[in-house]
Amino acid sequence: MQVYLNGAYSELNEATISPLDRGFLFGDGIYEVTRVVNGKPFRLDDHLARMDEGLAALKINLPSEVRAQIPEIHFELLKRNGLETGQATIYLQISRGMAIPRAHAFPDPEVAPTVYLSAGAFTPHTKLHESGISAITIGDVRWARCNLKTVNLLANVMATNTAKEAGVGTALMVRDGVITESPNANVFGVKDGVLYTYPVSHYILNGITRKTVLDMASDLGIPVREIAIRDTEVDQLSELFISGTTTDVQPIVTLDGNPIGDGKRGPVVKALQDELIKRFHA
Amino acid sequence: MQVYLNGAYSELNEATISPLDRGFLFGDGIYEVTRVVNGKPFRLDDHLARMDEGLAALKINLPSEVRAQIPEIHFELLKRNGLETGQATIYLQISRGMAIPRAHAFPDPEVAPTVYLSAGAFTPHTKLHESGISAITIGDVRWARCNLKTVNLLANVMATNTAKEAGVGTALMVRDGVITESPNANVFGVKDGVLYTYPVSHYILNGITRKTVLDMASDLGIPVREIAIRDTEVDQLSELFISGTTTDVQPIVTLDGNPIGDGKRGPVVKALQDELIKRFHA
Repeated sequence: MQVYLNGAYSELNEATISPLDRGFLFGDGIYEVTRVVNGKPFRLDDHLARMDEGLAALKINLPSEVRAQIPEIHFELLKRNGLETGQATIYLQISRGMAIPRAHAFPDPEVAPTVYLSAGAFTPHTKLHESGISAITIGDVRWARCNLKTVNLLANVMATNTAKEAGVGTALMVRDGVITESPNANVFGVKDGVLYTYPVSHYILNGITRKTVLDMASDLGIPVREIAIRDTEVDQLSELFISGTTTDVQPIVTLDGNPIGDGKRGPVVKALQDELIKRFHA
Repeated sequence: MQVYLNGAYSELNEATISPLDRGFLFGDGIYEVTRVVNGKPFRLDDHLARMDEGLAALKINLPSEVRAQIPEIHFELLKRNGLETGQATIYLQISRGMAIPRAHAFPDPEVAPTVYLSAGAFTPHTKLHESGISAITIGDVRWARCNLKTVNLLANVMATNTAKEAGVGTALMVRDGVITESPNANVFGVKDGVLYTYPVSHYILNGITRKTVLDMASDLGIPVREIAIRDTEVDQLSELFISGTTTDVQPIVTLDGNPIGDGKRGPVVKALQDELIKRFHA
């Protein structure tokens, strides 16, 4: 597998960073995962806009000549890894870079950010998209800047493991009595024909697939309200699903052991899934 | 500088990790910083007990033969770096290790954790300990597991930078109207001769130096109440200080531009500083 690191392409095992990289020491960096269908990164501009916003929020200055190369690095990795047809994902991470000695404060003078990208083949979870998955609710213990796609992901990692230990597909995180997100996807519910989801704020990551779901709902005539779902009103939902770059539109058919609606994939999910596949191949 | 990485000692620039290390991708790991005076790590057992607790909380299984070597690695690094006299710090970080492909879930089967240690000379901030520093208050945006000494430190990094941009020495973080911590130290206040500090909970890191301060206060006959300081009662404090492994006992003499007490190092701080130096050299 060929990867990109700081200006050079190499095999993965030849790409190395220092343990003093601030990504490793502090989680001081951001990432993106972009879906690729037949060589075409889906909504790459949206991913790169969010990347830029994250870098600005963290005050990581990516040199403009490096920034300009980011799109072509995506395409070069697809080419080098034989991923110009079929499905793939591209991972991008930018940390503040490596500095000595370790100190919380930003390095002064600045150091070059660490820029890492990789590409891998991807298989959509087609069976799960039809069968649905089970989920549990757990407390959302994340920080108050979940809008930033940073690599401070330990809460997400632990939540994923809690779900796995419980024998379910994912966990829905609850903060202040409302469902925020799953560890790596946005959450939507359907109630009385209306699509509900947590509004854009500091408490969720504004997913690119979330945006696509909202676009598709608008085009399909499904009414949307960006209002969070209370954990006490889950029994009133006819459908529940999560959305994400590798999750697509994934129905959740039982939550905490209770069926959602009739416990099967519902019509709103199906319509969104069909439309998403169309858009991937457009 | 000689460092230790996964069983081998080398020069720092020869020690490398993969960008797929979960420390880099997810901040999936813990760390410790131990103070060393004349070759003697201060309260090393406490640091290693906290390390063990952190690893257990994160469900990172450090092989017992590696765990058994951790103390001797501390001493070997001091020797290899000529730090057996004078002052030093030892940094330790353990991540869940490197796994392919990137996925939130713990690697299954497990992979070997990444174990990194380094040692460097340290100079106490003696002048600042006498002059005191200024600080600002800022919102505590950290997650709800601040008791774990993980490398998910971006909130702390950003808070440190906010303080630096404001031209002050540190920031005191406020959650729900009370002062929790600085980005890398615990916070204490003196009011009517009583020492106040945030109680042990999920919202602070239970610092080893915090424990030492409480031990010393007990020995010095200073009454202690583990009750958080409200941001509205700062003007009633006669002294305010932070404690940490590299911070020692550091007075804060102005907060948000207002003097604390008479704006100078106070007697409680001085007594604790003198006692801490005695304990370092005991």
